[in-house]
Amino acid sequence: MKLNDDGLLIVLSGPSGVGKGTVRDALFEMEGHDLVYSVSMTTRPPRAGEVDGRDYFFVTREEFEANIRAGKMLEYAEFVDNYYGTPLDNVMNNLSAGREVVLEIEVQGAEQVRKKMPDAVFIFIAPPSLDALYKRLRARGTEPEEVIQQRIEKAKREINLAYKYDYIVVNDTVENAADKILAIIRSEHASVKRVLKQYKKMLGVE
Amino acid sequence: MKLNDDGLLIVLSGPSGVGKGTVRDALFEMEGHDLVYSVSMTTRPPRAGEVDGRDYFFVTREEFEANIRAGKMLEYAEFVDNYYGTPLDNVMNNLSAGREVVLEIEVQGAEQVRKKMPDAVFIFIAPPSLDALYKRLRARGTEPEEVIQQRIEKAKREINLAYKYDYIVVNDTVENAADKILAIIRSEHASVKRVLKQYKKMLGVE
Repeated sequence: MKLNDDGLLIVLSGPSGVGKGTVRDALFEMEGHDLVYSVSMTTRPPRAGEVDGRDYFFVTREEFEANIRAGKMLEYAEFVDNYYGTPLDNVMNNLSAGREVVLEIEVQGAEQVRKKMPDAVFIFIAPPSLDALYKRLRARGTEPEEVIQQRIEKAKREINLAYKYDYIVVNDTVENAADKILAIIRSEHASVKRVLKQYKKMLGVE
Repeated sequence: MKLNDDGLLIVLSGPSGVGKGTVRDALFEMEGHDLVYSVSMTTRPPRAGEVDGRDYFFVTREEFEANIRAGKMLEYAEFVDNYYGTPLDNVMNNLSAGREVVLEIEVQGAEQVRKKMPDAVFIFIAPPSLDALYKRLRARGTEPEEVIQQRIEKAKREINLAYKYDYIVVNDTVENAADKILAIIRSEHASVKRVLKQYKKMLGVE
């Protein structure tokens, strides 16, 4: 029995290299949920095989900036001369329809969401150790040692922001992490602050 | 990965007739947990088949009152001239050993536990409707209509205390309720307030 009609906004965030995307994929492959992934908007050109509206909403720089000015971005950031962000409309429509919306975003973006949607569930995906994070970044094989070291330093600063989140899910194995996130979603649907008013109304108890 | 060494104290409470005991039994029959049930202490005589230390700790009135005076009861109450309560030592020993301790107690007892153990997880087991509660009390067939009406009125007052709990679990089906409680326990083990300090220590991040 779900007592709140609105879906939950679930924010998955954490340091670069922690495996947010893999955890999110595993989560969506699991049974027993009604999750919707919030497709991001970007100004970077589509790569081979990427589909507009599925992988990203691909827009021009002018369109993206018009969205920012119109307050239509829940969060956004600029990386390497391209904008990336979460369109607000899509999120709100899904939440109103009772769906759980999952955002998988950078720590910086999560800070913006926290200001606009404090009722969201903020989950910090954390590495089991800094060494594990280092190895994962190395295994990508795309960056020089110096850049990896910078990422580790950034990860430490981001871990120091974890206190602002509701949950810390250690990505020791992807299955464990995804399973824990599902438990968190179920549990949040029973939290007194979310359901009490509606429960008492349902029972006719003042 | 469990980040906090101490087990959680899980308090299941709710109105008389809501099915707390059945939910608790279902919970203990489920896989994938390390739960310990806190055996209560009572001054009422054992019924046929009841075993001391398993169903209850059976003690004399003098022993029980000595425990109260010595501050050795986590909570207690008197019903129909008998004491019922939760011995503190047993609970604390299990928590220190990292076990999850489950109390299944009356709303009045939960109020006492909240004062002494504010870090416990308080779960209010709620009826799906007052009519369902009425039918369940009637089905027991042990009480006159007048007493049942009194219990319904008491249940309404207790539902008005639900705001003090962390979660409301509606006992629509016993399996759903038990399953939701397990999700809550898993989720609480990832809550920032419980794990952040230990996580940062584990990573060596200040």
